[in-house]
Amino acid sequence: MDDISYFKKILGERGVVQDEEKLDDANTDWMRKYKGSSKLMLQPRTTEEVSQILKYCNSRCLAVVPQGGNTGLVGGSVPVFDELGWIYLFHIPKFLHFMCIFSIFGCHCRICFWCRFIMPLDLGAKGSCQIGGNVSTNAGGLRLIRYGSLHGSVLGLEAVLANGTVLDMLASLRKDNTGYDLKHLFIGSEGSLGIVTKVSILTPPKLSSVNLAFLACEDYASCQKLLLEAKRKLGEILSAFEFLDVNAMNLVLKHLDGLRDPLSSMHNFYVLIETTGSMESHDKEKLEAFLLQSMDSGLVTDGVLAQDINQTSSFWHIREGVPEALMKAGAVYKYDLSLPPEKMYELVEEMRTRLGSAANVVAYGHLGDGNLHLNISAPQYTDSILSKIEPFVYEWTSKHRGSISAEHGLGLMKADKIHYSKSPESVQLMAEIKKLIDPNRILNPYKVLPSSVLSQS
Amino acid sequence: MDDISYFKKILGERGVVQDEEKLDDANTDWMRKYKGSSKLMLQPRTTEEVSQILKYCNSRCLAVVPQGGNTGLVGGSVPVFDELGWIYLFHIPKFLHFMCIFSIFGCHCRICFWCRFIMPLDLGAKGSCQIGGNVSTNAGGLRLIRYGSLHGSVLGLEAVLANGTVLDMLASLRKDNTGYDLKHLFIGSEGSLGIVTKVSILTPPKLSSVNLAFLACEDYASCQKLLLEAKRKLGEILSAFEFLDVNAMNLVLKHLDGLRDPLSSMHNFYVLIETTGSMESHDKEKLEAFLLQSMDSGLVTDGVLAQDINQTSSFWHIREGVPEALMKAGAVYKYDLSLPPEKMYELVEEMRTRLGSAANVVAYGHLGDGNLHLNISAPQYTDSILSKIEPFVYEWTSKHRGSISAEHGLGLMKADKIHYSKSPESVQLMAEIKKLIDPNRILNPYKVLPSSVLSQS
Repeated sequence: MDDISYFKKILGERGVVQDEEKLDDANTDWMRKYKGSSKLMLQPRTTEEVSQILKYCNSRCLAVVPQGGNTGLVGGSVPVFDELGWIYLFHIPKFLHFMCIFSIFGCHCRICFWCRFIMPLDLGAKGSCQIGGNVSTNAGGLRLIRYGSLHGSVLGLEAVLANGTVLDMLASLRKDNTGYDLKHLFIGSEGSLGIVTKVSILTPPKLSSVNLAFLACEDYASCQKLLLEAKRKLGEILSAFEFLDVNAMNLVLKHLDGLRDPLSSMHNFYVLIETTGSMESHDKEKLEAFLLQSMDSGLVTDGVLAQDINQTSSFWHIREGVPEALMKAGAVYKYDLSLPPEKMYELVEEMRTRLGSAANVVAYGHLGDGNLHLNISAPQYTDSILSKIEPFVYEWTSKHRGSISAEHGLGLMKADKIHYSKSPESVQLMAEIKKLIDPNRILNPYKVLPSSVLSQS
Repeated sequence: MDDISYFKKILGERGVVQDEEKLDDANTDWMRKYKGSSKLMLQPRTTEEVSQILKYCNSRCLAVVPQGGNTGLVGGSVPVFDELGWIYLFHIPKFLHFMCIFSIFGCHCRICFWCRFIMPLDLGAKGSCQIGGNVSTNAGGLRLIRYGSLHGSVLGLEAVLANGTVLDMLASLRKDNTGYDLKHLFIGSEGSLGIVTKVSILTPPKLSSVNLAFLACEDYASCQKLLLEAKRKLGEILSAFEFLDVNAMNLVLKHLDGLRDPLSSMHNFYVLIETTGSMESHDKEKLEAFLLQSMDSGLVTDGVLAQDINQTSSFWHIREGVPEALMKAGAVYKYDLSLPPEKMYELVEEMRTRLGSAANVVAYGHLGDGNLHLNISAPQYTDSILSKIEPFVYEWTSKHRGSISAEHGLGLMKADKIHYSKSPESVQLMAEIKKLIDPNRILNPYKVLPSSVLSQS
């Protein structure tokens, strides 16, 4: 029996996709930068089906690429050559205590409508990303400053190993110190150690009062000081602290329809501050006092508080629309860096000096978490531009002990750049763990770790 | 050159302890339940010294037990036979951005006095525990409900592997998705995979307003409902939700000098609710409204708000004094369980039925995190009592998908009980990882994992 017949036996006709158009979509990443040539997409509906597929693939040394919403930015979720791919499907999440258990065969919901709790994660890609992919890539997003990373909020998970073994780590407990906490190996390993099939996640209570301010600062130092002040003065209600520079703002205003500048004149920097709390009057009082003081001290030169849900949504649209605007503007070189906040904008300025008029250097991101999205927009991709950006951007980040991937992961794009952020000893141990858990290297090959290290170990 | 001469060459005379009294202390655990016969304690002062010691021990297959403050409750930090032991020493922590970097050779400080930030961790053992031990055991404590587990707040660490390799994972970044997040292997593995030598930890801003209420409830269902209400009504300012039952209260009042009941009559349950926020007037208003409503609805039958720092300290002393009171009361069987909150007290009641008048069943713990400290106090240890408790307590916990060690770890006491909370596949993978990283099993042997599984793999 050939491979395809075997897969049809397990999944039925429905679960084995050979339609060219669908394959083409699944073979191409969100950025349209990476393209594989997989001839087959599998759509399992249960953990048992995933297990059977992997066991078979492992025995035949067939490579597999797990794919969720295919919203990744580093080529992690598409085949590179002719690996198999699959996508995750729909299933109803089950609510339990203070946490939700999501199946990867589950819905995309960000909020448990059945209860009064929320997902501790909010991403620009929220309309299409999937929970299995979120966990596998340790997705960060807009509310990490408040709710922390998924390493803190994922309570348990179920993963299928390359040999088909189902690892049930699906505790829904807040605390559990019985042995090594293996789930963390699967959070952020981009599907290269196992396929995450179920997730139990801590869901914070949904609080009634949410406020959003859209502010202008004239220099980066003011943005930074504003962050320190916000952490102190807004303390427990601060739920997002995002920034974009004037280049990002100009792009958004130019390329996105129906968006308008909430402020009457242009400024060098824009900051979005969101608060979330349990009592509207208290939160308003804190936020207004904070804004008054920030205006008085000159940290903030202009600003507006969202008055209703439409304004809230349009303020967020400005910040969340930057990636889309960049895509519309032409070629874009994307970097996702963690840097000490005081160093962050130095890199942007150095990059502008290096590139001159050849490209538009755009900066935005999760300032509250020290996460810069550095984007270089140009009419088209050229070797000359790339050579001015790389390896400079990685070397600069490494020199300041930053991370060359704050939240996007390494995927295919940065697998061989890992040494800029990790020591040789750490990379060596990662390779040994990969070899232990996936000895035939069938799971998302060519991603995360450099092939050179994997073949050595 | 014999082993001791070699260690003296590396550490100097000062770092090699053979004094019987000191060895006796280090060989005995806090509970005085476990006793090793190690003849040697090493006190390295730098990572390099730790590395040299481990490299040597690994080459000679000498077993090593890492020991910090020796405050563990499961026999994890003392030698079982004649393994080497060592303790951590003093060094000044280095402050950086929003996080502190602590060396295990560092001080015990819970608060960075140099700055306006706090440790995201507070334990009963805070006077003597050490940061290396806290991280190695994934210590939980009183504020986990607010700041989450160390898997969320530890940003980076440095660990020395059995073969002396120093793994530098000491990023101080909030976000870093470059490869597998290896630090989690060392958080909670109780020194069996490596020795944690430095820790970089996220320190939340120190907020100015802290309030504490000491409340009485008449039944367990009310405690539970009160928790749900507190999560909703106090939302973002809730920083601790602890409980003790009347048996715990009686013990504390009987055995601890100078403590008095803050309430005028006895009640079945007591709850401590702490809030931490940035504005005193707002927090007081929320807390008072919450208390009024809880009294009106009958959830709370009596209660008092701490009026000054002395009252705060004496309320906390009641809760934190339970372990000490238990030690003074005689023999004590200690269990540290995670259970679904609605099931938690059922176990306590079943245990009382089983034991009758033979023992005093005492319950307290971190109700906000679903963590019950179930303690059985008796005049002395007897097989008859033990056989009524075990394996019943583990079986019951396992049946309800709880954890047999919420925060204390497995140590020696529960290494062979791991299957009650973890699947065979998970335990197998843990053993494989142990074998990969510490093939000669020199690091804290006989702890965490059952010997039977380690010798199989």
